[in-house]
Amino acid sequence: MEKKEMLYEGKAKKVFATDDPALCVVSYKDDATAFNGEKKGTIVGKGVVNNRMSNFMFKLLEKNGVPTDYVEELNDRDTVLKKVQIVPLEVIVRNKAAGSFSKRFGVPEGTAFKCPTLEYCLKDDALGDPMINDSQIIAIGAATKEELDTIAKYTMKINEVMVAFFKECKVDLIDFKIEFGRLPDGTIILADEISPDTCRFWDVDTQEKLDKDRFRRDMGGVEEAYAEMMKRIGLGE
Amino acid sequence: MEKKEMLYEGKAKKVFATDDPALCVVSYKDDATAFNGEKKGTIVGKGVVNNRMSNFMFKLLEKNGVPTDYVEELNDRDTVLKKVQIVPLEVIVRNKAAGSFSKRFGVPEGTAFKCPTLEYCLKDDALGDPMINDSQIIAIGAATKEELDTIAKYTMKINEVMVAFFKECKVDLIDFKIEFGRLPDGTIILADEISPDTCRFWDVDTQEKLDKDRFRRDMGGVEEAYAEMMKRIGLGE
Repeated sequence: MEKKEMLYEGKAKKVFATDDPALCVVSYKDDATAFNGEKKGTIVGKGVVNNRMSNFMFKLLEKNGVPTDYVEELNDRDTVLKKVQIVPLEVIVRNKAAGSFSKRFGVPEGTAFKCPTLEYCLKDDALGDPMINDSQIIAIGAATKEELDTIAKYTMKINEVMVAFFKECKVDLIDFKIEFGRLPDGTIILADEISPDTCRFWDVDTQEKLDKDRFRRDMGGVEEAYAEMMKRIGLGE
Repeated sequence: MEKKEMLYEGKAKKVFATDDPALCVVSYKDDATAFNGEKKGTIVGKGVVNNRMSNFMFKLLEKNGVPTDYVEELNDRDTVLKKVQIVPLEVIVRNKAAGSFSKRFGVPEGTAFKCPTLEYCLKDDALGDPMINDSQIIAIGAATKEELDTIAKYTMKINEVMVAFFKECKVDLIDFKIEFGRLPDGTIILADEISPDTCRFWDVDTQEKLDKDRFRRDMGGVEEAYAEMMKRIGLGE
């Protein structure tokens, strides 16, 4: 499978066409951004970590009944994916309060919830990715009721699988953001990535942050945290 | 029923104790605020309009199976209510896009929805009354799942009754905000008010605004709009 012309360049990834119109190749960059692009930087080796971890997690989720866009890892940074139309929603699950949730609702970071929360943000940089609820999503046509039901069902399953998996790795899964896509026949599948860019990982004993918050909050040890997460899931050196 | 000591003074209302510990008296003021208290002013006669319209609507809703805190109108500004603990949520229904919805999601004012939207904001001035969804409400304990189910059921019924009623008055009900309270036994009932302060009313033919947006947006004719709404519902002179 060869990379042809670039179809799209995002903040952290490039997407290329292939000879097969149903497939594309994603190429993970080391570029890091935060706060809707206001903060910019580089995390050396991040592209490799995110590509390999994401593929590992997508394969684990497929085994647990969640369909994904994963096809084949080409090398450390490049992966063949099914082409999808992205549903314009960030789907966020939280097991403990952190980040924007803590700020918005005045709840201290680390507060555990009895039940995980599920929230959606409309993917729209110009509007600042505002939070949106089910009835609003349906009203503006960003997704249908049936699509949201499918997305919610898969998302809660994904949380269940991931919480259990990371617990074995001595990591608390605090929260994560995922995205879904539509295949040409309308089937909803998991897309985008699962990585320290899109999850909050805290060491289960020390509560040390092992994710992109180290970059967002200028905490240092960013590359080391990404490498540590690779070790924890059995992919590191 | 006599007013005793003042229990609480809000932006637009005062609440007084009575001899009966289960009842209070609300007294509607002419004070108007907007944008979380940043804009302040007076709308002469507003207290009378809001008190009388709200009582009228609450009686109509009681007849349609929605329990409310209404007990007895004492005079043009004062009404006896059942004492409740307010559920700390603003419950907002929208039939057409307007105001903060239009701004947040980039949808032009007046865009009709196939289905009404239902949204919640956490009542917290210091946090700016942020939007909050069902799972988040349950996670922070602002209300229980059972309470939210009851609130959603009553709210959609209230919208149905109000849309039909105002249509007869040649008024489009664009959106509205309501609040609910808990009786000492935990029963959920409609509380607060229904008035041009808390609803968007547009003339069905001209789409002229007959509500507090005239104050928020410095459009003039504020008192006239409130008086016109009283006429439309059969309470005006």
